[in-house]
Amino acid sequence: MSDLKSKFLEVYSVLKSELLNDPDFEFTDEARQWVERMLDYNVPGKLNRGISVIDSYSLLKEGKELTSEEIFQTSSLGWCIEWLQAYFLVLDDIMDGSHTRRGQPCWFRLPKVGMIAANDGILLRNHIPRILKNHFRGNPYYVDLLELFNEVEFQTASGQMIDLITTLVGEKDLSKYLLPIHRRIVQYKTAYYSFYLPVACALLMAGESLDNHVNVKNILIEMGIYFQVQDDYLDCFADSEVLGKIGTDIQDFKCSWLVVKALEYCNEEQKKLLYENYGKDDPACVAKVKALYNDLKLEDVYLEYEKTTYEKLINSIEAQPSKAVQAVLKSFLAKIYKRQK
Amino acid sequence: MSDLKSKFLEVYSVLKSELLNDPDFEFTDEARQWVERMLDYNVPGKLNRGISVIDSYSLLKEGKELTSEEIFQTSSLGWCIEWLQAYFLVLDDIMDGSHTRRGQPCWFRLPKVGMIAANDGILLRNHIPRILKNHFRGNPYYVDLLELFNEVEFQTASGQMIDLITTLVGEKDLSKYLLPIHRRIVQYKTAYYSFYLPVACALLMAGESLDNHVNVKNILIEMGIYFQVQDDYLDCFADSEVLGKIGTDIQDFKCSWLVVKALEYCNEEQKKLLYENYGKDDPACVAKVKALYNDLKLEDVYLEYEKTTYEKLINSIEAQPSKAVQAVLKSFLAKIYKRQK
Repeated sequence: MSDLKSKFLEVYSVLKSELLNDPDFEFTDEARQWVERMLDYNVPGKLNRGISVIDSYSLLKEGKELTSEEIFQTSSLGWCIEWLQAYFLVLDDIMDGSHTRRGQPCWFRLPKVGMIAANDGILLRNHIPRILKNHFRGNPYYVDLLELFNEVEFQTASGQMIDLITTLVGEKDLSKYLLPIHRRIVQYKTAYYSFYLPVACALLMAGESLDNHVNVKNILIEMGIYFQVQDDYLDCFADSEVLGKIGTDIQDFKCSWLVVKALEYCNEEQKKLLYENYGKDDPACVAKVKALYNDLKLEDVYLEYEKTTYEKLINSIEAQPSKAVQAVLKSFLAKIYKRQK
Repeated sequence: MSDLKSKFLEVYSVLKSELLNDPDFEFTDEARQWVERMLDYNVPGKLNRGISVIDSYSLLKEGKELTSEEIFQTSSLGWCIEWLQAYFLVLDDIMDGSHTRRGQPCWFRLPKVGMIAANDGILLRNHIPRILKNHFRGNPYYVDLLELFNEVEFQTASGQMIDLITTLVGEKDLSKYLLPIHRRIVQYKTAYYSFYLPVACALLMAGESLDNHVNVKNILIEMGIYFQVQDDYLDCFADSEVLGKIGTDIQDFKCSWLVVKALEYCNEEQKKLLYENYGKDDPACVAKVKALYNDLKLEDVYLEYEKTTYEKLINSIEAQPSKAVQAVLKSFLAKIYKRQK
């Protein structure tokens, strides 16, 4: 494990212990054990988003070594993002009726948990302002941090709403699956919290006003959309050995970039095939959809999309006045460009 | 309808319209309709908590007529509390598998809603900081308001957690139903948001620091606990015509003040009867529990509790240095003392 990652994990233990001894609530022993188990089960994941706060802040500091205070603070903000993600995932799994998450049963599927998981999700969300209060109260950007997390949570929940009401499984209405809707779902549900939020946290810690970085925000949102398009592409076209899972977007009637593009390019006959076979948990139907994707050369459409998106992003990044900000944006782009998993 | 109530309802329309046109999210028409329907279904209820912010603020101003700005702002804070309550109720109903709420089906029971209700609950919660940002940003107490709502939400969710893990229906373990646990559940789950929060909002608007009013907080928490004990008592002993519903705490294995007191006063034989009959949805079992409550004279125990609690509260209130604060506290107490519904 890298040094950075182990330091990041140490901060988790500190934050957890503070939350389990929060003076604004009298825990019973049973309640304290419950929350500890819930946190350990749900919060630590791949840690990419969290660690990217530290990476971004280092780049903004142009390589100057971080003090231990700075490492602790950037890590705490990174953990707030991990907490936010855990909160969304716990509730999303309930809403989607999912079975597994990160290779283990979803939290709400555990026998003693069940619907208590909904309240656990709420608790995860409530831990974020506790962490911010414990470690950032008195900082000049404290209220900006509170507003940032409020805004991004609002956008994510709103994106999730559009996703839920557009892709209502009961209705199976493919006519809604258009590019502007796909873009809006992805932008709000994923891009803000996964791409914009880590960099915004780092900018605030570096003393910047977010109002002066609207372009940075827009670039990160574009990158977040690109990231999700990749996700949709890989779900169908990646080697499942490399990806580490078997995609099920076609069976699940997902509003994937691929089906949106297929609907854009198909003729009437192909459209009929899509309507008849998309969203069915039957290998023959899935195979027909995949064959159609191949007929429509969606791999090529994707590769072309990836190329032009990359070029546009690089151009926007290089138009940024600050070299340090350029470095932050390029590091995000490098992590996702041509990824295979 | 009183003039105050109709003004309060006008503010709802303004706040709703702002939320449906929030510049930080691009609504689709479908999404805007969804949110409007969801708000109208879930937010406006009895309005007691919301209106108590206006009442409290008026009393703190010692009868001076409020400006229209003050009426709008106190009403907005009142609505934030109503939004907070709606959020908890939508999610509680999912967790409890409830069927009706305020005389209509629970939101998640509507055919098109289902589990989307969990995300709707999240949206309700997210509306609170939007309202605060729209109307209180720039006020000196803005950050105190954000922290107040964060703290009270955290305490409510933590109280809900203790309730859920203590009263796990599957386990049916009456040995956990002790007075300190009952007190803790009630204090955190109900008292903070129903009693402390409205007064704390009014105090902040009146320019007070909450740190100087710890006694006010403690008195309101005691009042909130008394209110919930009444609720538990009325569930069993009130005239269901007057109460407007038929109590089901016994069937539902609720950690009610009555069963806690019954367990405190019963002998071994009576304890056995309780263990065998409490929490069963069978009229014969319910009748046996009610007969036991009568044998143990729980009505008298309750009336004695009410009397001593009232005296203690009056004494604490009259020890408050500010007459205006005394008036606020007395108005809350007057609303609940000896209530029949």
